[in-house]
Amino acid sequence: MMKIPKSHPRYESLTIREKLAEGFRKGFVHETGLIAHGRGEAFDYLIGEKTIDISNDAEKVATALLLVAENPVISINGNTAALVGKDCVELSKKIPAKLEVNLFHRSEDRIRKIVMELKKFGADPVLGENPDARIEGLDHPRGLCSREGIYSADVVLVPLEDGDRCEALIKMGKKVIAIDLNPLSRTSQSATITIVDNVVRAIPNMIKWTDILKDRPKEYLEALVNSWDNEKYLRDVLSYISKRINSI
Amino acid sequence: MMKIPKSHPRYESLTIREKLAEGFRKGFVHETGLIAHGRGEAFDYLIGEKTIDISNDAEKVATALLLVAENPVISINGNTAALVGKDCVELSKKIPAKLEVNLFHRSEDRIRKIVMELKKFGADPVLGENPDARIEGLDHPRGLCSREGIYSADVVLVPLEDGDRCEALIKMGKKVIAIDLNPLSRTSQSATITIVDNVVRAIPNMIKWTDILKDRPKEYLEALVNSWDNEKYLRDVLSYISKRINSI
Repeated sequence: MMKIPKSHPRYESLTIREKLAEGFRKGFVHETGLIAHGRGEAFDYLIGEKTIDISNDAEKVATALLLVAENPVISINGNTAALVGKDCVELSKKIPAKLEVNLFHRSEDRIRKIVMELKKFGADPVLGENPDARIEGLDHPRGLCSREGIYSADVVLVPLEDGDRCEALIKMGKKVIAIDLNPLSRTSQSATITIVDNVVRAIPNMIKWTDILKDRPKEYLEALVNSWDNEKYLRDVLSYISKRINSI
Repeated sequence: MMKIPKSHPRYESLTIREKLAEGFRKGFVHETGLIAHGRGEAFDYLIGEKTIDISNDAEKVATALLLVAENPVISINGNTAALVGKDCVELSKKIPAKLEVNLFHRSEDRIRKIVMELKKFGADPVLGENPDARIEGLDHPRGLCSREGIYSADVVLVPLEDGDRCEALIKMGKKVIAIDLNPLSRTSQSATITIVDNVVRAIPNMIKWTDILKDRPKEYLEALVNSWDNEKYLRDVLSYISKRINSI
């Protein structure tokens, strides 16, 4: 991995980027994943490269939703594995939630490499290698998934997902938590709970919220979830960005 | 090169992206260049994927600055070569300005490939293969440059440049024209004239402005340059984006 000097004013952003480039060289990040990451960087820039208060709330409520779920699943793609693979494994153990590798540009080789990467961090099992079900409304092979994982999940956490898949999961009646820095994307607009934040901050924050919330009564967590107004949240994020741009 | 159907709603954006992927496969676009491109795509989306009027003004004034310069140089990196290599060669002949390949992730192989690419479009000479000077304040090998090119230039056009290099060139007393879709970047904030526009529109526009301005008296061009208020321009761009986000 390339060494970024700590003195560089963009040290954090460049280190994150280098993690992704590393995943690319290892063969589990797709080249369009690099371009997608850049799009995310731009939106992160606009929110100030920090978790804004309302997104911290979104992370809290999303964690509550995972904790009350019957069969929660965390969907992992190449970018997610490269950036927060280790954190996703930790979150999956704490909730607990299943892990399933699910790719936009599916290739058995990339799936295998991502599964291996997650197992390196202590995950076991990792679903995704032997799909036996289909997400309705998605082309083959994008729709392939695991029956005991995403197919039967009631809540799916999809960090860095594509709009088609998010919409298809919602149509199947699932609750979807999306982590997407673009508040205007179809993913953001269609998810049950959208988290407009960088995954490298969002997942560790959700681990923290899991520790705080896990012993709370189910009624308390359900009340949190039921109080969430995702449309209002997205409007507030856009208004935040708009004001921030004007005040810089 | 992958064929994108003209009917696709994102035809233009996907065609540009495919040009870049092509440069990547040829080995002269760096993987972090793909990420940088994604960032650009997001900001281009926010300005509406067109040259806004005030940026057309910036392109006009920047062209005037190139025309009155003693030793203008166009700095070329992998993304610039992939997206507008041909146009940069044409602009360099019309101004006239020197061309120098200068990379953030310097590798002799990539430099050679980019030089070859520019020569294919009729450029000769192209500086950069045999650096004999240093940009002060930049680490080796990023600071390497050519004495008769960037080192001694009074005006440098840096499409898609990094902030460090832009600031270092300014510190050396040069006038820097930056083309950068992010109005908040250090490059944008430190350049003498910033052009917040997609290079695929900006460089052809500057060729057009060269044709219009090249026979104008030097005093006229200098007055144009002196009237430019880059800080005000950047504020106006931000205000444009802010209003646009709020109206989406």
